[in-house]
Amino acid sequence: MAQLTGSIVKYPARNLVVWYLGLIAVGTIVLTWSISRGSGAESISLIDAIFTATSASCVTGLAVRSTPHDFSFIGQLVILLLIQVGGIGIMTITTFTMFNLGNKPSLRARAILTETLGASDGADLKWILQHVLVVTGVSEGIGFAILLARNLFLYEPGTAAWHALFHSVSAFCNAGFALHDDSLVSFQGDVIVNLTISALIIVGGIGFPVLLDLNKNWRRGPIDGWIHLHLHSKFMLFGTAFFLLAGFVGFLVLEWDGVLDQMPLWKKLLVSGFHSVTCRTAGFNTIDLASLTNATLFISMMLMLIGAGSCSTGGGFKVSTVMVMALHAWKTFQGASRVNFARRTIPGEVIQGATATALLFSVVAIAALTMLLVIEQSSTPHPKSQGLFLDAAFEVVSALGTVGLSTGFTGTLSNMGKLIIIVLMFLGRIGPISVFAALSMTERKTPVEYPKEEPLIG
Amino acid sequence: MAQLTGSIVKYPARNLVVWYLGLIAVGTIVLTWSISRGSGAESISLIDAIFTATSASCVTGLAVRSTPHDFSFIGQLVILLLIQVGGIGIMTITTFTMFNLGNKPSLRARAILTETLGASDGADLKWILQHVLVVTGVSEGIGFAILLARNLFLYEPGTAAWHALFHSVSAFCNAGFALHDDSLVSFQGDVIVNLTISALIIVGGIGFPVLLDLNKNWRRGPIDGWIHLHLHSKFMLFGTAFFLLAGFVGFLVLEWDGVLDQMPLWKKLLVSGFHSVTCRTAGFNTIDLASLTNATLFISMMLMLIGAGSCSTGGGFKVSTVMVMALHAWKTFQGASRVNFARRTIPGEVIQGATATALLFSVVAIAALTMLLVIEQSSTPHPKSQGLFLDAAFEVVSALGTVGLSTGFTGTLSNMGKLIIIVLMFLGRIGPISVFAALSMTERKTPVEYPKEEPLIG
Ligand SMILES: [K+]
Ligand SMILES: [K+]
Repeated sequence: MAQLTGSIVKYPARNLVVWYLGLIAVGTIVLTWSISRGSGAESISLIDAIFTATSASCVTGLAVRSTPHDFSFIGQLVILLLIQVGGIGIMTITTFTMFNLGNKPSLRARAILTETLGASDGADLKWILQHVLVVTGVSEGIGFAILLARNLFLYEPGTAAWHALFHSVSAFCNAGFALHDDSLVSFQGDVIVNLTISALIIVGGIGFPVLLDLNKNWRRGPIDGWIHLHLHSKFMLFGTAFFLLAGFVGFLVLEWDGVLDQMPLWKKLLVSGFHSVTCRTAGFNTIDLASLTNATLFISMMLMLIGAGSCSTGGGFKVSTVMVMALHAWKTFQGASRVNFARRTIPGEVIQGATATALLFSVVAIAALTMLLVIEQSSTPHPKSQGLFLDAAFEVVSALGTVGLSTGFTGTLSNMGKLIIIVLMFLGRIGPISVFAALSMTERKTPVEYPKEEPLIG
Repeated sequence: MAQLTGSIVKYPARNLVVWYLGLIAVGTIVLTWSISRGSGAESISLIDAIFTATSASCVTGLAVRSTPHDFSFIGQLVILLLIQVGGIGIMTITTFTMFNLGNKPSLRARAILTETLGASDGADLKWILQHVLVVTGVSEGIGFAILLARNLFLYEPGTAAWHALFHSVSAFCNAGFALHDDSLVSFQGDVIVNLTISALIIVGGIGFPVLLDLNKNWRRGPIDGWIHLHLHSKFMLFGTAFFLLAGFVGFLVLEWDGVLDQMPLWKKLLVSGFHSVTCRTAGFNTIDLASLTNATLFISMMLMLIGAGSCSTGGGFKVSTVMVMALHAWKTFQGASRVNFARRTIPGEVIQGATATALLFSVVAIAALTMLLVIEQSSTPHPKSQGLFLDAAFEVVSALGTVGLSTGFTGTLSNMGKLIIIVLMFLGRIGPISVFAALSMTERKTPVEYPKEEPLIG
């Protein structure tokens, strides 16, 4: 254990890759055993087993097989364990990496963050893991209790408990796997289920450091507590509220005459709210995505790209990255040479890192979409395959943002296409933290300064 | 005239808006007159006249009416004049603005650029306009002579001359208007026409400062000449060659079994090369865009976004902006705190400006696409309208990048949709230089430095 810990401390990104590959490999093997197979289901192909194990470990939620029908109780349990281990693992390791690998210029910032964590002498892996386990246990426990109480009205006790457990873990880990083929469509109007799942998604997705920071400051009351929060927590709370509201209003307006048409007002609000919560990274759905308008799907794609918080179970660009970039652009247009927010100055390296990360993310998405288009649709000219473009783009963003929503394209993928999505899910999960670690571990060089010369832009 | 010049010097962006609005207004009025109407054509609606005048003035090339059939010779002449004035205007004013409104910190860089222009005492508007007129006249003159010689084999002399004039102006100005309903599809295999039009597009799109710089240094021979070129010229030459090659290879590979299938090898190469040249900003086409695969259309969209050079007749993000951003990301991943290229350091403000401009461009594109999807397709759920997503996205990028290629979506637009495209064409033309001017004229502020604090990213 000590050796393992030492190894993670030294090479977090490399170890993360090895660990997740190991987790996926074990999951794949167990899922191919007949004991994992649902009664009456065909045996699973290797690629489908890899796909399912990757999707579960990376808490993505895209599915090529039906979770309730193609897998036995054992198979579902394996999926649940992969989700739980994957979710806890990513929270622990990202937090550890973020807090122990800051750039040299930001030693002071690191001290502040370490102080946030409340660990006395830097944040060691064990301390973080323990606290992540507590947060996870408490959240999932509460979620389980509420869902169980609700489920007892619907199922016999064993099923009720199993469904409550599976869905509370899947929601907190932002995994989006469900024990119904239509995800949560049958619970579309169920206020308790909607609110519980939404709360779990938000808590799991806002990020471990924010939860600790809130835990430390909530006693101060709203105003004094807000002031004492760290910049990152302010960013996340403000950003999350903003994007939740934007998604909610967007969905409500765009689908008012669409899928929401026949619903009473309270249900319109409930469905819009749930979609806004889920589409940033969780991947459950209470409406059939394929029946949405193009405009809603496009906005959903943007929200999927933005994603959730750093050091959380969620994916995407991350809310704070997007906010740093937006703030930077805004300040640039105001002619300011420094980016200030809430009486703090954001260091130039962070802005540089955010921009470079976003650009890399975009390049990967563009390359993957191009490959997918070539592989799945290259033999068909546009008039015949045009409908598939949005589906393919949606799928790529969903996989890379580890969201797991799909308009149905997943089911039509060829083996090669599945492989691309598998790689994307993996990159979406391991990529950002590896890039961060790489950025942080690279020794900062200050190259020779040449005479300045400006290329023309704009 | 002196008063006018003084006014441009003071408020280049505001004047640009007023001038282009004026040009569009005059064009609109003349196009609605019956003298502009083609024999047998219906009278043109106001929105179509505005659309056509905007598309011509902003050298975009999207068309809601058939240039050869719905307009008389007079109407076509008006379109040609709008293209010529719009093209010369944008080159002159962008060059003037770029060279006279540099940020205060970059006075030295401005001196270098002014020296590039070869003007002794700063670059005044008259000097720039004269030289732009010379470059334009010489280029279009050569193009006209070659196209005329070719056309004399095809048409009677009057038509041959008119076509040669129209197409050489339209190509140099990167306007993409053609006197054939199928653009240049009937010249698909015509080597002379393809090469002449391609050369005009490239020369018109690389940017006026690069042409001046080349003119100054070409006598030195390739190696010594290259060394003496300014950073911007190196960026543009290198970037243009790279993107031309990428587009050429991409198209060739992706359409080998597609639209290129029945063609002999030389024609495959010719069509691929022409598409690569034209889709970055010119907007002519020698194949039917609707028959391309999704993958090719997607790659074409990326090229359209990248666009051509600053201070040129082309649009898009601009090659140099994209290169600055890519270089910056690359250096960031290497851990370098400074961006060097060809023994020059690129100032931080330029990088900041490039990033902010690209972000603004993206936000406008996303907002416009959402609006267009809402307006044109909001009543139809995804399964029925899914095919239109790529078409709509392609149209938005084409309008904002002032490219003018279309998969046929332009013809189906409602009046509201046409209005959105009109606004996009205008923003795509006037936007980048206005943003630059705004950035440059804003006094640089150095806000208070607060304690540094890092939000978590990635
Ligand atoms: K997910
Ligand atoms: K054009």
